Amino acid sequence: MQEKQYVQYGSCCAGSCGASKDITGCRFSLSPMSDRYVEIILGAIEQVDVSKVWSKTERLSTLYRGRREHVIDAVKACFVHAWQPDVHMTMEMTFSKGCPGDTDAESYLAEDTVLRNESSMKEIHFPVDCKISLYPMGVSNYMEFIAHVVNHAVDLGIYAGSTHYVTVLKGDVHALFDYFAWVNEYCANELSHYVLEATLSVNSPTAE
Amino acid sequence: MQEKQYVQYGSCCAGSCGASKDITGCRFSLSPMSDRYVEIILGAIEQVDVSKVWSKTERLSTLYRGRREHVIDAVKACFVHAWQPDVHMTMEMTFSKGCPGDTDAESYLAEDTVLRNESSMKEIHFPVDCKISLYPMGVSNYMEFIAHVVNHAVDLGIYAGSTHYVTVLKGDVHALFDYFAWVNEYCANELSHYVLEATLSVNSPTAE
Repeated sequence: MQEKQYVQYGSCCAGSCGASKDITGCRFSLSPMSDRYVEIILGAIEQVDVSKVWSKTERLSTLYRGRREHVIDAVKACFVHAWQPDVHMTMEMTFSKGCPGDTDAESYLAEDTVLRNESSMKEIHFPVDCKISLYPMGVSNYMEFIAHVVNHAVDLGIYAGSTHYVTVLKGDVHALFDYFAWVNEYCANELSHYVLEATLSVNSPTAE
Repeated sequence: MQEKQYVQYGSCCAGSCGASKDITGCRFSLSPMSDRYVEIILGAIEQVDVSKVWSKTERLSTLYRGRREHVIDAVKACFVHAWQPDVHMTMEMTFSKGCPGDTDAESYLAEDTVLRNESSMKEIHFPVDCKISLYPMGVSNYMEFIAHVVNHAVDLGIYAGSTHYVTVLKGDVHALFDYFAWVNEYCANELSHYVLEATLSVNSPTAE
């Protein structure tokens, strides 16, 4: 009989990151609602320059880990290159930094901040519907951070309403990813561990 | 010039739920990767008996709120009825309870625990890949709760591995939803506010 392999991170200390390096991660899943989903997903992933992040595509999702700006540049490129004018598609993203159970393994921190993908997508614009949820971990005053982040979306003009469990955003793809970059930087500065969940949707046939 | 409508919940107290009633919610999005996605999604939603939950389908997702067992019964029914033997599909779910910003509005607490949908799906079985992330909010010892929940999946034989930011599960659709029911009950008993994110995937063409 095989011994059960329990996880051991229950005693990890909140407030201390398990990784010593400054690693931001994004795990994401593209879901193009089309019979051509395989070529859309694989075509997009292949078009991303991942030379400045650590990258792994698994059965359920793809993961990029590295410097914050390069992770965001790569995941944005994947979404922009997967976008088709006539295909309804969602992308679920989990940005995370500072987990007490994290390690330095499976990451790559590029030496510079020169983005590898921005030039291939800066001329591509399309409107995106989005929902986000921010989880500041290990702190009792977490609602303050959430409100601050939501109110920055109000200031930017991309806020489209609050509903149960999520905040709704609307905007051009570049405006949304600029906002995600800001949220990740703000949270990295203010919090030991945070998770930002965001789901993007394009070309929904549902009336507004 | 219009005045900006900022959100006001930054001062909500952690440890106190904004709702006085015992409301569990689940917001979910189905993504069938098929040209027939509209009929698959709407067909599934129409087959769910929502008489024991508060229900709303919005542009980005559908939301059920009510007693824990009825919310889980309804969202499980939606997934089971959307499943097609030959269509790759994902479903992203956010279970939540106890948010300091929550209210009693937009909910329905049925008087009894007799499930409305279980009989229509109990004979339907199929394997599901899954990733979950648990966010116990407002507490510094959150890693303990996460480890306990993951180790219960180990005990049940549905644990398929830990990777960055998520735990991977595999099992029959009923085994997974039984587990989600257990996690929601455990967290409701142990935590003032928690969020459980889960993404289900069926019929992935990616090799294991």
